[in-house]
Amino acid sequence: MPTLVLAPDAFKGCLSAPAVAEAMASGFKRVWPDARILARPMADGGEGTLDAVLAASAGRRLTARVQGADGRPIEVPYGLVHGADGPTAVLEAAAVVGLPMAGAEPVASRSTVGLGQLLRHCLEAGHTRFLIGLGGSSTNDGGSGLLAALGVRLLDAHGHTVAPTPAGLADLARVDFSGLDPRLKQCRLTLMTDVQNPLCGPLGATAVFGPQKGVAPDAIGLVDARLRHWAELGDAWAGAAISERPGAGSAGGLGYALQLLGASHRAGAEVVAELAGLDAALQGADWAITGEGRSDAQTLLGKVPLVVARHARAAGVPVSLLSGAFERAALAELAPHFDGCFALPDGPMPLEAALAGAHGLLADRAEQLARVLAACGKLSRT
Amino acid sequence: MPTLVLAPDAFKGCLSAPAVAEAMASGFKRVWPDARILARPMADGGEGTLDAVLAASAGRRLTARVQGADGRPIEVPYGLVHGADGPTAVLEAAAVVGLPMAGAEPVASRSTVGLGQLLRHCLEAGHTRFLIGLGGSSTNDGGSGLLAALGVRLLDAHGHTVAPTPAGLADLARVDFSGLDPRLKQCRLTLMTDVQNPLCGPLGATAVFGPQKGVAPDAIGLVDARLRHWAELGDAWAGAAISERPGAGSAGGLGYALQLLGASHRAGAEVVAELAGLDAALQGADWAITGEGRSDAQTLLGKVPLVVARHARAAGVPVSLLSGAFERAALAELAPHFDGCFALPDGPMPLEAALAGAHGLLADRAEQLARVLAACGKLSRT
Repeated sequence: MPTLVLAPDAFKGCLSAPAVAEAMASGFKRVWPDARILARPMADGGEGTLDAVLAASAGRRLTARVQGADGRPIEVPYGLVHGADGPTAVLEAAAVVGLPMAGAEPVASRSTVGLGQLLRHCLEAGHTRFLIGLGGSSTNDGGSGLLAALGVRLLDAHGHTVAPTPAGLADLARVDFSGLDPRLKQCRLTLMTDVQNPLCGPLGATAVFGPQKGVAPDAIGLVDARLRHWAELGDAWAGAAISERPGAGSAGGLGYALQLLGASHRAGAEVVAELAGLDAALQGADWAITGEGRSDAQTLLGKVPLVVARHARAAGVPVSLLSGAFERAALAELAPHFDGCFALPDGPMPLEAALAGAHGLLADRAEQLARVLAACGKLSRT
Repeated sequence: MPTLVLAPDAFKGCLSAPAVAEAMASGFKRVWPDARILARPMADGGEGTLDAVLAASAGRRLTARVQGADGRPIEVPYGLVHGADGPTAVLEAAAVVGLPMAGAEPVASRSTVGLGQLLRHCLEAGHTRFLIGLGGSSTNDGGSGLLAALGVRLLDAHGHTVAPTPAGLADLARVDFSGLDPRLKQCRLTLMTDVQNPLCGPLGATAVFGPQKGVAPDAIGLVDARLRHWAELGDAWAGAAISERPGAGSAGGLGYALQLLGASHRAGAEVVAELAGLDAALQGADWAITGEGRSDAQTLLGKVPLVVARHARAAGVPVSLLSGAFERAALAELAPHFDGCFALPDGPMPLEAALAGAHGLLADRAEQLARVLAACGKLSRT
């Protein structure tokens, strides 16, 4: 009886990671009805991270009422899991200030206030351990909103409060950290992110990730300068060049604000792999399959499939990649990391058809891979 | 050092069978640079059959000047191979009266005269053994053109010659077989076709294949009745119901006319497999790959991939199918015949992009399959 580990990322905008694993499993079971299938849905810190963490660690899903990126009140999910370190609250930036919560508000007036409110909500419930998934945010406020919600005051030259948004930061003259929630001192914050970028400059949040959030090309310099001013004040308070640290540029600067609060950061997929017990599942497994919606040069920078491949190879388990699509130019570099890379489509088709049929296409591809393995005699039939 | 047998059909309108095999080989060689690759390009009797037969048996390619389906003079290829039976001329209907030779001429006035001229050309060169690939024709003349070119006279009620076309057959009253080239009596004709249909009726040439050649739906009954009349006269001459035999409906009735001349018929892919020495290549091979442009319910009716799969399984060699596209509804039925079915696209894409990039996509898919096999340890690396 073969043992298979299914550890895909979500197919973003299409199937959740658990749904991807389920589709793969159904295809495999057409060939081996009684295969032992260990589903370990993965995530990288962005959209779907909360679900993956909850699925991996049998945690509890809760909700709170906070502001969305556009300032309107919304109900957002968070989680409670039993970490190595005790009870841990799991927050996902994408679920609070992600693009779906941005409404019609332009990026200049979006803020991360809601994530700060959610953090405060957890502090009030007595939590002191936090896992915070960055990635998938719609904001570019340098994390100023998060800090404002936690008691930091952003002031203009006249001592008036400014909005914690890219637009509001234009008038920033002073930051008063004295009101920062003192309970944060007792907290351990761990960020989940793949992003290594600093807050400012040509590799910073605005230049690299701003355009996909709606920062106009000719506004990049101006917005970057405002974040730099915000960072000078923050770094001065911290007494260290936090803004230059890797990951400060994650999630439009949420990575910066949270590092100001002492957060450490880890690759999201590594955290999820740990919580999900990926290494234990791989012990003695015959084959592993990972997946993601689209595989491209970004995948090589430590996204879920690469992390799963690393763990699988370390365990001596072959690992294949089933993706919705491959960027042809990246395939040559991706291929050596995997034992077979296969795309979803079963013929020429428009993107919409692939998205609509993804579950069935995934099952079909998994079945075909299973048939190859069966013929190899690698995985013995029962 | 692994031994691989590559036995694809052509990807029609895209890549010849030898080009498909070459693309597959280049992908495999990225993983095993010194793999032993036995390319056995296949064909089913239709377009590409002549090339496949010549490639398989190191024959000679010749040309002759005959009429195309539209009556205009064209130069067409044929081949000479050394068959089991002695020197054998290889004719391909698709290369003489295929759709590209039909020009703007409507199907009602297309004829197979050219194929008869080519046969006569070969008779004059002294050939007595013929392999004739049917399939891929643009004609629906019941093979009357072929016979007319070989000396048969088609006459109306006044004794005037009628055109050997669907339109001309409307006036057919009598057929004079007395002028039929007597050399045909010494000949052995073998047809290559997958089609088992009779000449007339609801399963006949006109009803089943007429529409794709341009027979209007409301003209099917009329054209079928004309072929039936033609067949009554032919069957009477032969003294047997040749028109009801399997394959009489092949290539718009070429199968009928040639069976009137005593032709036997075989599955095209089986003939090519024999000429190409497919079974010998499979002996001791590690894996086989076949392929075609599009796999659908037709594939199950004995097209190249099914024939290759049958031979491979009989030899105990696993066999995978790489196709340009799969009809999803047919995949479930196709899959058990193969050890993995994989499509060309590496993501959602329009048909034009898949056609334009077919060579590279094929190589990539073959590479990925090779990576799975390598990880299985099925095919040992050198």
